[in-house]
Amino acid sequence: MMKIPHRIYLTEDQMPKQWYNLRADMKELPDPMLNPKTYKPATEEDLYPVFCTELAKQELDNTTCYIDIPEEVQEFYKMFRPSPLIRAYNLEKALGTPAKIYYKYEGNNTSGSHKLNSAIAQAYYAKKQGLTSVTTETGAGQWGTALAEACSYYNIPLTVYMVKCSYEQKPFRKSIIETFDGKIVPSPSNTTNVGRAILKADPTTSGSLGSAISEAVEKAVTTEGCRYVLGSVLNQVVLHQSIIGLESKIAMEMIDEYPDVVIGCAGGGSNLGGLIAPFVQDKLTGKANPRIVAVEPASCPSLTRGRYAYDYCDVGKITPLARMYTLGCSFVPSANHAGGLRYHGMSPIVSKLYHDEYMEAISVEQTKVFEAATLFAKQETILPAPESSHAIYGAVLEALKCKETGEAKTILFGLTGTGYFDMMAYEAYLKGTMKDYIPTEKDLEKGFSELPIIPKN
Amino acid sequence: MMKIPHRIYLTEDQMPKQWYNLRADMKELPDPMLNPKTYKPATEEDLYPVFCTELAKQELDNTTCYIDIPEEVQEFYKMFRPSPLIRAYNLEKALGTPAKIYYKYEGNNTSGSHKLNSAIAQAYYAKKQGLTSVTTETGAGQWGTALAEACSYYNIPLTVYMVKCSYEQKPFRKSIIETFDGKIVPSPSNTTNVGRAILKADPTTSGSLGSAISEAVEKAVTTEGCRYVLGSVLNQVVLHQSIIGLESKIAMEMIDEYPDVVIGCAGGGSNLGGLIAPFVQDKLTGKANPRIVAVEPASCPSLTRGRYAYDYCDVGKITPLARMYTLGCSFVPSANHAGGLRYHGMSPIVSKLYHDEYMEAISVEQTKVFEAATLFAKQETILPAPESSHAIYGAVLEALKCKETGEAKTILFGLTGTGYFDMMAYEAYLKGTMKDYIPTEKDLEKGFSELPIIPKN
Repeated sequence: MMKIPHRIYLTEDQMPKQWYNLRADMKELPDPMLNPKTYKPATEEDLYPVFCTELAKQELDNTTCYIDIPEEVQEFYKMFRPSPLIRAYNLEKALGTPAKIYYKYEGNNTSGSHKLNSAIAQAYYAKKQGLTSVTTETGAGQWGTALAEACSYYNIPLTVYMVKCSYEQKPFRKSIIETFDGKIVPSPSNTTNVGRAILKADPTTSGSLGSAISEAVEKAVTTEGCRYVLGSVLNQVVLHQSIIGLESKIAMEMIDEYPDVVIGCAGGGSNLGGLIAPFVQDKLTGKANPRIVAVEPASCPSLTRGRYAYDYCDVGKITPLARMYTLGCSFVPSANHAGGLRYHGMSPIVSKLYHDEYMEAISVEQTKVFEAATLFAKQETILPAPESSHAIYGAVLEALKCKETGEAKTILFGLTGTGYFDMMAYEAYLKGTMKDYIPTEKDLEKGFSELPIIPKN
Repeated sequence: MMKIPHRIYLTEDQMPKQWYNLRADMKELPDPMLNPKTYKPATEEDLYPVFCTELAKQELDNTTCYIDIPEEVQEFYKMFRPSPLIRAYNLEKALGTPAKIYYKYEGNNTSGSHKLNSAIAQAYYAKKQGLTSVTTETGAGQWGTALAEACSYYNIPLTVYMVKCSYEQKPFRKSIIETFDGKIVPSPSNTTNVGRAILKADPTTSGSLGSAISEAVEKAVTTEGCRYVLGSVLNQVVLHQSIIGLESKIAMEMIDEYPDVVIGCAGGGSNLGGLIAPFVQDKLTGKANPRIVAVEPASCPSLTRGRYAYDYCDVGKITPLARMYTLGCSFVPSANHAGGLRYHGMSPIVSKLYHDEYMEAISVEQTKVFEAATLFAKQETILPAPESSHAIYGAVLEALKCKETGEAKTILFGLTGTGYFDMMAYEAYLKGTMKDYIPTEKDLEKGFSELPIIPKN
């Protein structure tokens, strides 16, 4: 039998030329986004002031199964893709598991994560439309770095609202974004109405993705020739990220493998939705039935403890309403080190799949996540991002189950990125000063109590 | 005509199974290492107290042309190798050059550089010999990280003497080395006699690789079951790093290319020696005649302004003497941001090749290096290490010459690593506070005046 290589790469010819739009295959669609003023389903026109025209179309396209990746974007992808599918031989050995563990590794680019997949697409459409600037938010800083790279490539001025606690935890993220000509504003800030309001209510707030989004959107809609771009949650982002799952599936086919279980970390759902897309397609079309598992932080448990309800995507309540698993847009997650997962809601696509029981979800405390991260780093020589390490934890859990049962299952997980800018978190873990935060029922009830009430039409 | 892909990967089967020992093909050998007490050529026995037995053998082996890579090391290599050979299409376009630019990218592993190639080999031999601990020094921190990864894999306790100015510039290097169980001591320190002597002479010294080496060697030879391992300069390291050049050559053959010029950054010579090895072989055997160019920092110009003389490899004068291009072991380079290139000497192999005119060398100020680095990052989406960026500068220079002459030369350079732990340097460059340091003739004369006098036998 051929030994499976450690790293499986597609050739350029094998790389996907289209993104896969999961919605076109779903039995039931996610509920439509609502205009926050009329509570009617948002139209393309509603979205034009916020998003690029082409991206607004992708956001609402529930029918086109495959969407062409523009040639320029394909060319850019070739600078950092295909990303490798890696067989975790050493991790398997260290765990003593009969399971076969594979991971799709998206960290081999300077943004340090999968975020560049969507960033370059969004920058491309912005350039094509002749926009003169864009805004965004960033949590952990990976999205901000990715978008700065993409915007610098297309010479589009970029302002990044960076969640304040990440800004303080990761001083060098600022420098790298600035190296790519991005401008950083710690959020909440005094540069927007919504930022000023948040600061007035709580001057010491550590910020959140939700409030940074509000600021970036406000800035975009009040600036001529400017639009807002987002690194997660949205349908368009899950669409672009389908490249992860598509490549993974082809790579597994090359070695005659198929996953019994697919595991992703869950924040806003961009990596998760992209990774699982073609495998969920197999479930929807009856071709295969892999288990799908989301792993989220116990400190921000939108799937496992949230409500499936219409909510704002931001704290300032200026975005359209989306039906999703949410902790309430006013919920402020603790300053967990996995900044990229500190979001109150979840991609409507992922939420619907979870609601309809196509997938499972678990939550985990960050000290356990760093334990898995450190084990992984020593065995596989890659220092993982805290976000990604949630998926490692999930994979280790499955592999240890296999050890008990003796089953040689095939596990696929998404290793979304590297932790080189997260050394303060690793330091806290090593020193034993890292704390776990689990919201109380009261914390959650407070968030839920502010969920918007949607009038029946 | 087939379009050359952006990234060329060898398959696992194509990966080299032997390192190439350039010395076996050299017309004239580098002068032998000398025992610092007897001034006689060092024997294996002389080296045993300092180095692992197998590595001492490799150090003195001038005749075996190809040396088997142990199977365990080959397996470990497969976790992060083959590294890609990348066609810099975007950089070419930005420069408007007819030249074809390729780079061998060694930064896609957690150590952030090529250093892991030799680290895992050295840790393997240490384990095989049953050593109970090892010591080393690190400048930029890449070697320290690489060795920590390798030692953690084999459960060998490691102490890293880190050059003080790097320790201060790169706080997160400490955390990452500690994540892999390495112990860090800023050097010069009070833990060794030589460290105490250096501190007494100059309490405010920012340290240097030379003094960190002295401390690590002293610690190794005075500790039971301990040996010293080194990330550059030595013949054994150049041997292990030949994997870079061997893979590059195979990858270029796959696309029917051969370099007109091969460019590497030059510090101690580990990457440079490894990258150029098989191309120098072609020169030595008359198969081809590519130009070979070393690029070194103007602040530490051992090749371009040094003397070809016997000198100590360390500041404390406890190592054997090597004939090499040197600024004198007492020369303390300025706190240049390319910490990995702040070394007074140069690999004896590289020195001999330069002396015998098989290669050229240029030096460059760091602000120019960062200009090249930033240009490269924006075009190629990889944030390069300051060390590696010296080679980028050299490649850009060659490409611009081609633009003038209209020649479509094939340029190959070594991109040794990433700059994620060098953000303070990028920040200084962005702010315009980065300074250039060029030693005066007087600075150099001082270093030369302390060169050892070797008695004629």
